[in-house]
Amino acid sequence: MRIGLTILIAVVLVSCSGTDSESDVTVDTNDDQVFEWKLVTTWPKNYPGLGLAPENFSKKVAAMSNGRLQIKVFGAGQLVPAFEVFDAVSQGTAQVGHGASYYWTGKSKATAFFTSVPFGLNAQEMNGWLHYGGGLELWRELYDEFNLIPFAGGNTGVQMAGWFNREINSMEDIKGLKMRIPGLGGDVITRAGGVSVTISGGELYTAMQTGVIDALEWVSPYNDIALGFHQVAKYYYYPGWHEPGPTLELIINKDAYATLPSDLQAIVETAARAVNQDMLDEYTARNNEALISLVETHGVQLRKLPDEVIAELRSISMDMFDELANDSDIAKRIADSVKSFQQQATAYHEISEEAYYNARKQN
Amino acid sequence: MRIGLTILIAVVLVSCSGTDSESDVTVDTNDDQVFEWKLVTTWPKNYPGLGLAPENFSKKVAAMSNGRLQIKVFGAGQLVPAFEVFDAVSQGTAQVGHGASYYWTGKSKATAFFTSVPFGLNAQEMNGWLHYGGGLELWRELYDEFNLIPFAGGNTGVQMAGWFNREINSMEDIKGLKMRIPGLGGDVITRAGGVSVTISGGELYTAMQTGVIDALEWVSPYNDIALGFHQVAKYYYYPGWHEPGPTLELIINKDAYATLPSDLQAIVETAARAVNQDMLDEYTARNNEALISLVETHGVQLRKLPDEVIAELRSISMDMFDELANDSDIAKRIADSVKSFQQQATAYHEISEEAYYNARKQN
Repeated sequence: MRIGLTILIAVVLVSCSGTDSESDVTVDTNDDQVFEWKLVTTWPKNYPGLGLAPENFSKKVAAMSNGRLQIKVFGAGQLVPAFEVFDAVSQGTAQVGHGASYYWTGKSKATAFFTSVPFGLNAQEMNGWLHYGGGLELWRELYDEFNLIPFAGGNTGVQMAGWFNREINSMEDIKGLKMRIPGLGGDVITRAGGVSVTISGGELYTAMQTGVIDALEWVSPYNDIALGFHQVAKYYYYPGWHEPGPTLELIINKDAYATLPSDLQAIVETAARAVNQDMLDEYTARNNEALISLVETHGVQLRKLPDEVIAELRSISMDMFDELANDSDIAKRIADSVKSFQQQATAYHEISEEAYYNARKQN
Repeated sequence: MRIGLTILIAVVLVSCSGTDSESDVTVDTNDDQVFEWKLVTTWPKNYPGLGLAPENFSKKVAAMSNGRLQIKVFGAGQLVPAFEVFDAVSQGTAQVGHGASYYWTGKSKATAFFTSVPFGLNAQEMNGWLHYGGGLELWRELYDEFNLIPFAGGNTGVQMAGWFNREINSMEDIKGLKMRIPGLGGDVITRAGGVSVTISGGELYTAMQTGVIDALEWVSPYNDIALGFHQVAKYYYYPGWHEPGPTLELIINKDAYATLPSDLQAIVETAARAVNQDMLDEYTARNNEALISLVETHGVQLRKLPDEVIAELRSISMDMFDELANDSDIAKRIADSVKSFQQQATAYHEISEEAYYNARKQN
């Protein structure tokens, strides 16, 4: 639909008539062109938490741009399969993607750093590193050759260690354990003698029920309760050593971004930042409620991974981190940056966030 | 300056000429009126962290609105004194204010809940409560009678307990302690036998140097190092029991907000959300660096408050919380909401964030 010139002139006349009490200045917004974009995601359409972020992003952008940038959200498989999101946005089939950088380690192993590293940064620290510690610049450098501009697009907070049908009392219990756990966490489990399996979310319940797998990690109570894992698993273990502060990503095709006028670019950037916080806020509130329900209504048995197991997984993770750092020049620079940030963040958080948690629960 | 109608028509013609590869649809942005707003703050102009948030907010809004909403930032005392920000925005002298809700307990004691409560929510939890736990709705209800709409506008994260020239080994050492500590934290110190003093930031250094006060709390390393407190104080204590997750506020005059078209309202709301995260990201990164400098370069003596002292301060704080809840109907409803959220958040964070901090540091 093309809006008639006559109407536009009429609007201009009204807008120039100077009845405004605040100011009689008007500016032209310089570009009334409408952009119609596609956003593809690695999540099912409207999936709680993860899948709400792209919808939220699209709504904020539409509202702020007064409809000048319209972004239609496609769930996984609707336009392209989940694991083709990166290529689709890189090639311009869609202008935006929402997912997690560690799905793209096949493109470059260094992508793993920007989701979550076992025993790495938590959500607050990831955001500090990305936005004030040089992380985002490195991420953009890494994605530049793929014609993509990445933005942080959500965070779940510390995840749970997962659902188990075998009690974990020592490293011996990891041996032969068939566990659905992707990414670096999966590599750690494999090195510890387990069998890391990749199964999509929709098939996990049945795989656990039928004993195809002995354990699985998904996200945290808010998401896990919706998939009903408490019905097919005996134990719910914590803490989520493998994904302490997973950052989701919004990726934008570089050419498409370049065609936007600067106000729409600012709208995209700020909407991403707001959505990035919004997801963490949602998980923080919903995880609480879901945990209560799991424990009190469904009688879930919460278990803490033994210190010995944590220590061993940590040791394997540190070795893997060093190997990953040696994969390429940029991997080394990212690893150095995040390692240095983590050393300082750990020192500071021991006397701030962590010390406060301890102070609060004293009786 | 009024842009000539001829130019606008020319722009409209260009915009309607349909050379766009994305779409040949155009929309009129429906209102090119320019709004010129004033933003008054309780901080000195461009003060690190706290004072950067309103500048950041103003820049984001200007960029996203393509100059249609221009917000000029005034530091404390430039247009109105720091502690008249609330009244100035309420009455429309300025359209926006940036500060902290607990400065306005003279208006309503319940305002204290929306900054930080001793032994209350940390930053991540405050954001969860405000945006997904009913907190923001209650805050808006409380401010409605003052013609104000509040938004979360930043968070410093857990603060430090402060700078001391007297070692704190037991509650006996709090007796007679002259400490600069405002708000509920100050009330707790007073009840513990100390003397809570209110001194503005600019006079703190001299007050500490000359022995007018024995102790002070300000923010955390990033801000504290800039004011040089390490030169006049012996000990730097943690954790910040009194302000575990202080939320700053952006307050907007309700009438002014109502005059904005809906796209500018969305821009204001989203910019606030982005700035709210941005400040926490900045403190998270900068506190780390500043702490290293304080300890390694300036030889600051870090001290942890003894468990006995923490436990006693906590007990006094809980009593105060209950008294505050009984101040009014709305205070009771806010107290019930935040208390319920905190119970759940504490339970969940014990097995997530807190358990993860412990897991990460195991050797």
